[in-house]
Amino acid sequence: MSPCGHEMHPPRCKQVPYEPHKQFLAYYVGLIPSQYYKVFGDRDQQGFMYLTLKSCGLILVISSVISTKKYIDSMLYITWRQLLCRALHRLYFSGINYYTLNILDKTIDNPDQRMTQDVDKLCLTLATITTKVIISPFQIGYYTYRVFVGTGWLGTLSIYILFLLGTVVNKLVMSPIVKFVIKQEECEGNFRFKHMQVRVDSESVAFHGSGSIESCKTNSSLDGLIRAQQRLFTRQIVLNLTRYIFDYLGSIISYLAIAIPIFGGKFPDDADISSIVSAYSFVCMYLVFSLTSLVDLSAQVVLLSGVTHRVAQLVECLLRLQTQWDITTLMASSSFTNITQKLRPKSDCGEGSSSDSQCLLEETAEREPPLCEDDKSLNIAFILSDVDIIAPGSMHTLVKSLHLDIQKGENLLIMGPSSSGKSSILRVLRGLWPAARGTVAHDFPPGPKTVIFLPQKSLVTNGSLLEQIIYPLRLDPSNPISKDTCEEILSLLASVHMKGLVNRTEGLHNDPGWNWNDALSPGEMQRVCLLRVLFHRPQFALLDEATSALSLDVEDQLYRACLQLNITLVSVGHRHSLTKYHNSLLTLDGTGGWRKEPILQQCVDV
Amino acid sequence: MSPCGHEMHPPRCKQVPYEPHKQFLAYYVGLIPSQYYKVFGDRDQQGFMYLTLKSCGLILVISSVISTKKYIDSMLYITWRQLLCRALHRLYFSGINYYTLNILDKTIDNPDQRMTQDVDKLCLTLATITTKVIISPFQIGYYTYRVFVGTGWLGTLSIYILFLLGTVVNKLVMSPIVKFVIKQEECEGNFRFKHMQVRVDSESVAFHGSGSIESCKTNSSLDGLIRAQQRLFTRQIVLNLTRYIFDYLGSIISYLAIAIPIFGGKFPDDADISSIVSAYSFVCMYLVFSLTSLVDLSAQVVLLSGVTHRVAQLVECLLRLQTQWDITTLMASSSFTNITQKLRPKSDCGEGSSSDSQCLLEETAEREPPLCEDDKSLNIAFILSDVDIIAPGSMHTLVKSLHLDIQKGENLLIMGPSSSGKSSILRVLRGLWPAARGTVAHDFPPGPKTVIFLPQKSLVTNGSLLEQIIYPLRLDPSNPISKDTCEEILSLLASVHMKGLVNRTEGLHNDPGWNWNDALSPGEMQRVCLLRVLFHRPQFALLDEATSALSLDVEDQLYRACLQLNITLVSVGHRHSLTKYHNSLLTLDGTGGWRKEPILQQCVDV
Repeated sequence: MSPCGHEMHPPRCKQVPYEPHKQFLAYYVGLIPSQYYKVFGDRDQQGFMYLTLKSCGLILVISSVISTKKYIDSMLYITWRQLLCRALHRLYFSGINYYTLNILDKTIDNPDQRMTQDVDKLCLTLATITTKVIISPFQIGYYTYRVFVGTGWLGTLSIYILFLLGTVVNKLVMSPIVKFVIKQEECEGNFRFKHMQVRVDSESVAFHGSGSIESCKTNSSLDGLIRAQQRLFTRQIVLNLTRYIFDYLGSIISYLAIAIPIFGGKFPDDADISSIVSAYSFVCMYLVFSLTSLVDLSAQVVLLSGVTHRVAQLVECLLRLQTQWDITTLMASSSFTNITQKLRPKSDCGEGSSSDSQCLLEETAEREPPLCEDDKSLNIAFILSDVDIIAPGSMHTLVKSLHLDIQKGENLLIMGPSSSGKSSILRVLRGLWPAARGTVAHDFPPGPKTVIFLPQKSLVTNGSLLEQIIYPLRLDPSNPISKDTCEEILSLLASVHMKGLVNRTEGLHNDPGWNWNDALSPGEMQRVCLLRVLFHRPQFALLDEATSALSLDVEDQLYRACLQLNITLVSVGHRHSLTKYHNSLLTLDGTGGWRKEPILQQCVDV
Repeated sequence: MSPCGHEMHPPRCKQVPYEPHKQFLAYYVGLIPSQYYKVFGDRDQQGFMYLTLKSCGLILVISSVISTKKYIDSMLYITWRQLLCRALHRLYFSGINYYTLNILDKTIDNPDQRMTQDVDKLCLTLATITTKVIISPFQIGYYTYRVFVGTGWLGTLSIYILFLLGTVVNKLVMSPIVKFVIKQEECEGNFRFKHMQVRVDSESVAFHGSGSIESCKTNSSLDGLIRAQQRLFTRQIVLNLTRYIFDYLGSIISYLAIAIPIFGGKFPDDADISSIVSAYSFVCMYLVFSLTSLVDLSAQVVLLSGVTHRVAQLVECLLRLQTQWDITTLMASSSFTNITQKLRPKSDCGEGSSSDSQCLLEETAEREPPLCEDDKSLNIAFILSDVDIIAPGSMHTLVKSLHLDIQKGENLLIMGPSSSGKSSILRVLRGLWPAARGTVAHDFPPGPKTVIFLPQKSLVTNGSLLEQIIYPLRLDPSNPISKDTCEEILSLLASVHMKGLVNRTEGLHNDPGWNWNDALSPGEMQRVCLLRVLFHRPQFALLDEATSALSLDVEDQLYRACLQLNITLVSVGHRHSLTKYHNSLLTLDGTGGWRKEPILQQCVDV
């Protein structure tokens, strides 16, 4: 009898449950043969029928128990996967962790792979070993007692020594393998990412006709993965060998253990040795199996630690980033309070009486009586004071000691040569990049009603056209969008010549199942993004080349609409046509210098 | 004794090799206990030592054999994975299959998932069942003979009936499950893709501060996956139940089979029934096990068919697309030959004498004597004749009956409102979209020395800065880039103010391991892409808003450089500044109409 079911697989194809349940129940089935011997010996047809019926009933019970257990394991697995994944999502999507992790902090490779594949593997294995962990102590305790009674301390000790030896050898053989498991997972993630890049960029690749080079790069990524797997498998030979040796040794150790009392003369010479041996060999073997299953468990856990390590690393990093982001936000808002309080006595009462009735910082406004001096300070969205901007990981200063207030009513245009740091100013304002020096201050409630940023790369999400427009709000099933709002959105779409898109998606509410990035042209995406601004009517909108793919007349129309809605605009752009919608110009010279000046010829009347 | 090792797992966590090898060898280990009974009965210490040594030797041999087999399985697995993946890559990257599959043809979900995960699962399972398939027939034949000799045709028949019954029941229970396996794989792919979208768009998401909504969407994708898994697992209860029942039935069927000759009186009354039963029960059980393992095999194959189906679907689709693409290319080139031959007599001799010494269609030129009339026809890259352009899957005609020749020396600017079909003309020229009506003709050797397209979405690949510039050529290790070429590239980079990038990447040849899309600003990406054109010096360059993120002076510089290199430009753009680099203007009106006219004020001298 070999300890079946103790397979050691490469951890990526683990999931070989060793089931004490099954073994225990199978034991009763295992007793059936000896009963058959009896009925056959007696030529007892009646007994044969009865035994067969009994066996069938037993088989039915055992099968039900095992499949129920399997089902419970599966349910545990998916429940845990869902819980763990959702917990990771919560961390990943809070603050700007997803950005920091993917773009700035390169310590964590392939976070997506970790949240999808690695979590999956982790939960699957955990679920299969849970029953084992729960049952093992009782099982081991019981059989140790039985073995001790049968063979004395020498027999028990010999089994435990074998077990310890097995554990130590396993541990020694396994430890160096873990890093190959980790490496393999990383390569798998890289391979996956390369494929995803091709999928996302497929049109551009097709235009370049560069299928062959992408094929070459994908193949080399595949080769890297295969090499990593090969290294892993080669190292697993020794591991497998020691595992099997201990598995099979377990199957004869029971006889070695029993040999001690037998040759020690513990039993009288006339005793039926056969029945004694068969009685004790069963408990011995079960103790060995219980212990081996524990070794297997530790083996699974150690090998799994490759995956666990990757997930734990991700969690750690996310928690660290979360704290950083909280501190940054807190600092920005406390600086804001400090600066605005200092500014208040200096502020000019006359300028404050602008036409905006809404108050940017309503909370602050409620706490303090609405003084005339407050008006201006409340209408500042961002303050940059003596800020140096350096791209993370770089040494080159993009912008030096920048002083900039983003104030209500002051439409600012940021211009300058490529790579001079225009977008980087927005990144610093949004808090994506830390300021290398100086103070970044802001304090406004989150949400699209106060400040909206439109990044240079238009963002479209998955879902219906309506979801694109109301982004970054989401459809609340309990509070659906009113018919009036839908009408408004439709007329907005019509005004920018995108009525056709509503037909293509078959209605505002219908999810066409598109990958919107592929379905819309860059110009269409920019219009959808700008409609978000018109829909949400924020106090401030920061637009990074938001109209670069649009014709001048559509640009004009959209900018005028923004100004009519009294949205303060901060634009980054190359086109000189933009100057007429702004009353202030910040020019970067590409070497760190900057100049801010009013734009005099504002020829747009809103 | 239960038939251990026959676990049925959800196919995603399959890989439970049933190993006839192991069972067969384990049998010899299984014989050891009876020998121990004998030495214990005889109190034979000498025999005990000898037996123990023999057992240890046996265990060593068995363990070595099994781990060697495991290693061979792994090697088969990775070899097959590499071969299958590479074969798929070859199909996927040939022609524009990757584009058609990802953007136009929506019948195949998640091709990347299929090429990474599904192929992996397929090969892993195939490798583990291969040995089984090879050994099974011999094993079954041998044991069938032995059972027939022992129990006659009734015993043999009863085993085969049980086996058939098991197969039929398994098949019935399993068939409806396959589609849940397929569904689960699809959901897994979708979940993965959502994560990848977040990874790729992380900066835009961070600017929008829309982590919460992306989290929500990712969670709902996860929930979809979990639901699919739950449905699968629920359906697997019955499958598992029937499987275990047949597994355990197999363990007593041998006694049922032996019962027939025994109660039939085949053996004399004084025969030692025990020894007869033990002798035949072994062969019976082994026949049952061999057959059960065959059922398991079919079970694995059926359940695997979920994965196999997905991979096969992908291969079929790719082969179909490949044929389409070949036909399209062939038609375009034969149309080209037809049209240019018709044009030849009409062509004007005087115009043909342009300054370009290189010949676009060198092959054609070599075949025919270089006649004066030929010059012009050879210098046409594309001919569109009476072409209607309709976006695939749409009903709306973007451009109606377009006649357009892309000729050497005629720099064409395509303008028009957003969504009027400017980029679509390039798509039709490149063959990404079929023409709804009319003839698209072109015939030029592939490669960046004749025609380069720069898509609106700048494409940067992974690798070193040098690889970005020489894209879509690739670094050939046997034919490295010369020092002069590197100098040239460096001076090109310097001329567009990108010397700093060389410092950031620490040299031209160094792979910084960046995701270039995140590392470069859109303006930088556009400059890199335009440098490709300057580096390759193609006959024709088709630029889709290639300078929209660049300042006017850099745009001017790059366009002048292209014109100086005698590259014929076809540009799509919104900026009026572009007109001065072109001598022909195609205007689309957004309703299908178009107008082509010469541009008179060409104020650029090159």
